[in-house]
Amino acid sequence: TLIGSIALFGKKSSDEINISEFMASPVTPMKQLVANSEDMKTRMELLILKIQADFCKALEKEETGGHKFIVDKWQRSEGGGGITCVLQDGEVFEKAGVNISVVSGHLPQGAVLQMKSRGKQLGTGQLPFFAAGVSAVIHPRNPFVPTIHFNYRYFEVKDGENTQWWFGGGTDLTPYYLNNEDAIHFHKALKEACDQHDKTYYTRFKKWCDDYFNIPHRGERRGIGGIFFDDLDTPNQTEAYNFVSSCAHAVIPSYIPLVQRHKNEHYDDSARQWQLLRRGRYVEFNLVYDRGTKFGLQTPGARYESIMMSLPLHAKWEYMHEPTEDSKEYKLTQVLKHPKDWVPLN
Amino acid sequence: TLIGSIALFGKKSSDEINISEFMASPVTPMKQLVANSEDMKTRMELLILKIQADFCKALEKEETGGHKFIVDKWQRSEGGGGITCVLQDGEVFEKAGVNISVVSGHLPQGAVLQMKSRGKQLGTGQLPFFAAGVSAVIHPRNPFVPTIHFNYRYFEVKDGENTQWWFGGGTDLTPYYLNNEDAIHFHKALKEACDQHDKTYYTRFKKWCDDYFNIPHRGERRGIGGIFFDDLDTPNQTEAYNFVSSCAHAVIPSYIPLVQRHKNEHYDDSARQWQLLRRGRYVEFNLVYDRGTKFGLQTPGARYESIMMSLPLHAKWEYMHEPTEDSKEYKLTQVLKHPKDWVPLN
Repeated sequence: TLIGSIALFGKKSSDEINISEFMASPVTPMKQLVANSEDMKTRMELLILKIQADFCKALEKEETGGHKFIVDKWQRSEGGGGITCVLQDGEVFEKAGVNISVVSGHLPQGAVLQMKSRGKQLGTGQLPFFAAGVSAVIHPRNPFVPTIHFNYRYFEVKDGENTQWWFGGGTDLTPYYLNNEDAIHFHKALKEACDQHDKTYYTRFKKWCDDYFNIPHRGERRGIGGIFFDDLDTPNQTEAYNFVSSCAHAVIPSYIPLVQRHKNEHYDDSARQWQLLRRGRYVEFNLVYDRGTKFGLQTPGARYESIMMSLPLHAKWEYMHEPTEDSKEYKLTQVLKHPKDWVPLN
Repeated sequence: TLIGSIALFGKKSSDEINISEFMASPVTPMKQLVANSEDMKTRMELLILKIQADFCKALEKEETGGHKFIVDKWQRSEGGGGITCVLQDGEVFEKAGVNISVVSGHLPQGAVLQMKSRGKQLGTGQLPFFAAGVSAVIHPRNPFVPTIHFNYRYFEVKDGENTQWWFGGGTDLTPYYLNNEDAIHFHKALKEACDQHDKTYYTRFKKWCDDYFNIPHRGERRGIGGIFFDDLDTPNQTEAYNFVSSCAHAVIPSYIPLVQRHKNEHYDDSARQWQLLRRGRYVEFNLVYDRGTKFGLQTPGARYESIMMSLPLHAKWEYMHEPTEDSKEYKLTQVLKHPKDWVPLN
């Protein structure tokens, strides 16, 4: 039975994972999870199931209209599947998507080239892979509540006898109006998660985030950053997992306080129009540059509805829109052009 | 002086081009145009200036709110420039962009690879190029008026002593609701333009259009097609130019009658919401797959505001939206999944 509490990782009750609290039953059959409870594939699947459920519930608590996440469990004919949770047209959240996927198969050629271009040593021929990740994008209705995105993933590629593994991920914030207090709170929460594991991580991954979420044709970052990393396979598998787990657990404390602070703040139509324009930029980044979206759309049998879930309900493109100098809107664009440090770096 | 009428192509008064009727003065200095009046670069620049002005004026005539095109003339530091005309937030046209560009410089590496992948024989090293084109996307407000896109362009690449030239382009329609009469009228106008030059063109270029405007991840075409071609360098330069000119002149008779038929038709909010969802698909195609957009964004010094002009004022993404079977919306999606022939093929 899927209902009930099972101890997968030893005897300590704090390690017990109550699968009845997940949004849906795991993607991998329970029997297989139990038989391989020490395997990183199992540990990661259970972690992302928990992160998904925790975050969906935390968001539902903030919704005032009683809107709940709908839950779609899907399978991929090539192997694996996922659970997509979406809350659409809520009072607090205009569109919130929290997705997990646990997939396996053979790497599509485009993915192999992408990995090699990052410096991965991979042979030719069929490369079996496994990937498990959680990914979320939350577009709130109130323009004073920022959009958040996070993604944490674990990858394994078999190349002959040799199995390579790595973690990747990150959390980043896209405000519509700049609020220093929010920005500091958010970055501080991420820094704390990093600092528990390696004092160099936050500085490195903060810069990586600013570099990654760049819209070159506009000379702007997508938002005010956060952390981003990929190909993490040090110092060892368990410690890398623990770091990813800390980051994923930091999402709620980094973000929910900002929702609470601003969700009932008054705003006018000009703020709404500005929010829609910024959402246009969000779409530009995701469709033109984002590696995850490209990888997703190239993967045979990928579930495009789960990939496109990241796009806002509404977006707008105005020709030659420029905020007037020294307006609140202008202040935001300055920080998008010149990312700043929100907390003292080590 | 730029005002006045000059005969560039011989003595017949019908060949006279009245530059005072253009939206702005030509990109290339008048002296240079006059000195090279027989050169295809000159002929193409004057053609696209005329097509731009004719189309903008035809659209302004349909606007009921007195909205006019704003005209932005811009220069590119690497060579050349363009004229961007935009009518935004009109009563009949929500966003209409008609752009010409006349640019030269050295081909960016991405463009060389793209051309080689299409079979072009090009050497290594710096390749000087010239490109002149007109491109337009019209997003009307009324969901019963289709969106139209067209683009006609002339290309020259110098490879050592050898200059290669070719034409490319096409016109295609993206309705929100299927109207057989409109579809037939539109395709017939394009077929007539093609048939004047080569009886095989329409059939070939209609299929090319259906193949090009494909959104693979959705298994849908962007619209109900039209014509599309590239690398046209036969039977000779003048005849290829004449063909392109016929196609470009067919835009107004193919489209304006549809605007007139439907611009005052009553529609409700559900039709508006459907239009916004379809515009989301339009954005997906343009940002993920369109070669012109990619080429544009990769070109150093490209004017992104003119490239992004093609995006609608408003767009929408709803998770898992499916029109109910046998609805009008469903009828459209069926034709997007299975393109049909609107006029008898040769």
